[in-house]
Amino acid sequence: MQHSKNIAIVGTGLVGSLLALHLKQKGHTVTVFDRRPDVRKVEFSGRSINLAMSNRGWKALREAGIEEEVRKLAIPLYRRAMHVNSSPAYFQNYGKEGEAIYSISRGVLNRKMIDLAEAAGAEFRFEEKVWDVDLSEAKLYTGESEKGNWQEYDFDLIFGADGAFSRVRHKMQRQSRFNYSQHFIDVGYKELRIPANADGSHKLDKNSFHIWPRGKFMLIAMPNLDGSFTCTLFLPFEGEHSFESLTTAAAADEFFSLHFPDIKDEISNLTRDFFKNPTSALVTVKCFPWVYNDKIALVGDAAHAIVPFYGQGMNAGFEDISELVRLEEIHGDDWEQIFSGYQNLRKPNADAVAELSYRNFMEMSSKTADQHFLLRKKIEKSFAEKHPEKWIPVYSRVTFSEAPYAEALKMGDQQAAIMDEIMRMPKIEEKWNSAEVEQKILEMLKGS
Amino acid sequence: MQHSKNIAIVGTGLVGSLLALHLKQKGHTVTVFDRRPDVRKVEFSGRSINLAMSNRGWKALREAGIEEEVRKLAIPLYRRAMHVNSSPAYFQNYGKEGEAIYSISRGVLNRKMIDLAEAAGAEFRFEEKVWDVDLSEAKLYTGESEKGNWQEYDFDLIFGADGAFSRVRHKMQRQSRFNYSQHFIDVGYKELRIPANADGSHKLDKNSFHIWPRGKFMLIAMPNLDGSFTCTLFLPFEGEHSFESLTTAAAADEFFSLHFPDIKDEISNLTRDFFKNPTSALVTVKCFPWVYNDKIALVGDAAHAIVPFYGQGMNAGFEDISELVRLEEIHGDDWEQIFSGYQNLRKPNADAVAELSYRNFMEMSSKTADQHFLLRKKIEKSFAEKHPEKWIPVYSRVTFSEAPYAEALKMGDQQAAIMDEIMRMPKIEEKWNSAEVEQKILEMLKGS
Repeated sequence: MQHSKNIAIVGTGLVGSLLALHLKQKGHTVTVFDRRPDVRKVEFSGRSINLAMSNRGWKALREAGIEEEVRKLAIPLYRRAMHVNSSPAYFQNYGKEGEAIYSISRGVLNRKMIDLAEAAGAEFRFEEKVWDVDLSEAKLYTGESEKGNWQEYDFDLIFGADGAFSRVRHKMQRQSRFNYSQHFIDVGYKELRIPANADGSHKLDKNSFHIWPRGKFMLIAMPNLDGSFTCTLFLPFEGEHSFESLTTAAAADEFFSLHFPDIKDEISNLTRDFFKNPTSALVTVKCFPWVYNDKIALVGDAAHAIVPFYGQGMNAGFEDISELVRLEEIHGDDWEQIFSGYQNLRKPNADAVAELSYRNFMEMSSKTADQHFLLRKKIEKSFAEKHPEKWIPVYSRVTFSEAPYAEALKMGDQQAAIMDEIMRMPKIEEKWNSAEVEQKILEMLKGS
Repeated sequence: MQHSKNIAIVGTGLVGSLLALHLKQKGHTVTVFDRRPDVRKVEFSGRSINLAMSNRGWKALREAGIEEEVRKLAIPLYRRAMHVNSSPAYFQNYGKEGEAIYSISRGVLNRKMIDLAEAAGAEFRFEEKVWDVDLSEAKLYTGESEKGNWQEYDFDLIFGADGAFSRVRHKMQRQSRFNYSQHFIDVGYKELRIPANADGSHKLDKNSFHIWPRGKFMLIAMPNLDGSFTCTLFLPFEGEHSFESLTTAAAADEFFSLHFPDIKDEISNLTRDFFKNPTSALVTVKCFPWVYNDKIALVGDAAHAIVPFYGQGMNAGFEDISELVRLEEIHGDDWEQIFSGYQNLRKPNADAVAELSYRNFMEMSSKTADQHFLLRKKIEKSFAEKHPEKWIPVYSRVTFSEAPYAEALKMGDQQAAIMDEIMRMPKIEEKWNSAEVEQKILEMLKGS
């Protein structure tokens, strides 16, 4: 049996709420701080990308006993619907029969998870900003302003679940030998919305993840329970087609008419939302260490923010919590062991999913129109169908398994090396579906 | 003719002082802030690595009209003296006849440069810490403590010359889309000292850079004008041979007896200094952008701190100032143009010298004992001697030329690719000095 600890969590987002629930279930005293108002009492921010819950996320929710509750908020997406030019969408299944990712509204899920953690006994303190952290003493300082009077809180442990721009990490960063990087990509995003039909039904197939790929930019849409879709436009900040170049309603309207004629009229209040909703940036954050002695640990985006192009941000954060829970069961009260095991096990996987996500951005933004790339995908798919046990696509390893991300990345690199060889075969365009190609892949798989 | 601006520089180190002098020479009003006391009035810190001034540094000093003054403080080093095991040192010339790097004590140089900038009319404000910067208004806030009362200063421009842990950059880092990384290597360093002989002469050849390479760690020594040498021990923080493992005077003494028997007895107060002087960490800092509109610019380590293994940190910082001066002469009063030209021209070169320095760390720490590596170096050297116009070693491009660092890196990569091929030739150990090898290099050079 563990001793009950007095634990603070900074950040009431998805990962912070899940952690709060878990820690309450273990019998700890839990206080959760957030500088923002209670998300249950305010309108959503207009800067969310819908979540794609996949296996890792569900596993963590199952462990907390709330999988069924959350399933009610989710819509399964079995396939991508690709809207290329004005031709009808074509569909690509994500996995095998029945495999799906699940669209959930971030706000809806966050409200539910705070409800569940609060019901379990966690105390939530909203609109209370943490200005400073004493790392070695696990003290928090909150207050109205940086120069005003601060309230001091004493804890046994503090978790930083305060996102990509974490204040807790910010304090750790001032230490010597703290490795840190933040890298922004040149593409930003903006939220838009496709409302439901008058009868409440969805305007597009609701069990698909909709993509309008356009080379350097793209639009996506994910369904909500109320029949609407949350859309996200990913667009470079600068350049020919860019947020910088769309400064008037007329320009934005023309841009959508030209590039998204099939969906433009379904997007409600297009130009109003385009200028009302913020243009948000996308960052990859890496750091190490993630913990300070047995006192402080970073979880979720605070430790490893990634770009959203693999739909794994929340899943990776939830997997952090799974790992912490598992280690707590092994090491009991020894938080130094729990924390050091946690960071050493999770760091390589966090780096791997960051790399996979960044590569998917490169792939989506530049390669989807490349014939060579499409042929390569076709060969992979054909081989995987013939030899499903020998060729598990990286996407499936990441999305429909719970094997480590680092393993998925490594297997993916091996597959890529094989495909590089295959694509160098003379006349590959003609013989891509031949026994010769199949045989060559089989041989290389034996060697790798 | 330019309009005189009211300019602040944060940081009174080498780059800050040189910039102050230059700006005074252009007729600006210059105030230089530092949180530390006046280096002219305190003892040196015991954490400096002697500087190696090379061509880029001298060029910047020449432009400021102070080359001759500084030459008086410098000792030319024409060669490396390698102390391998207990055999006598062997010597490797750095370049051609007369080419040298110059050893200067950081403290001595810094005092001189502050004197020169002050004499030119720059105002120095020591022990005044900058807590905050208003980027868009170019205001500085200083004070006794973060939460105390602050003094506000209004400037036209502010330069952050405040080093690897720059406060000015720290403020810029909170902006969206600011890319930033700090990466510490696992090796730290400690300063030690070899005093002069009784007659004031040097105990080792004074025109050599002395190195005791020992695989994962090494000792270096650089001469001072007073007959002493400043030594630096580079050693991993953790592991078998590490700072962590040397916690007692007896252990430190035994470590030096075992690994540096030929020099141990010359190091004065070895164990006292070993425990008195701090163990310092080594960081590479990269960021972008370096400027904020026409108001703020980062220079030197604040923009691009690098590990010291190429001896280019100060030289790269001084080259920033050369570039700024050149651009000021072109663009006159247009500081937006000056700043944007500055960051776009300097950033690729700063990245290149960071990469070169990091690679030299890898090379020095792991490869110096590798026979394959030594053979490779021998082939390169032999070819370069026969064809000096066709094969300029990277070290010479970096150290004895003023051509861009990025070019040196690129040429170095081309040379490395050629040498990879050469080292794959069968029986290269036997025929390394043959016409066949020479011919093959010549052919590959044509192709590259």
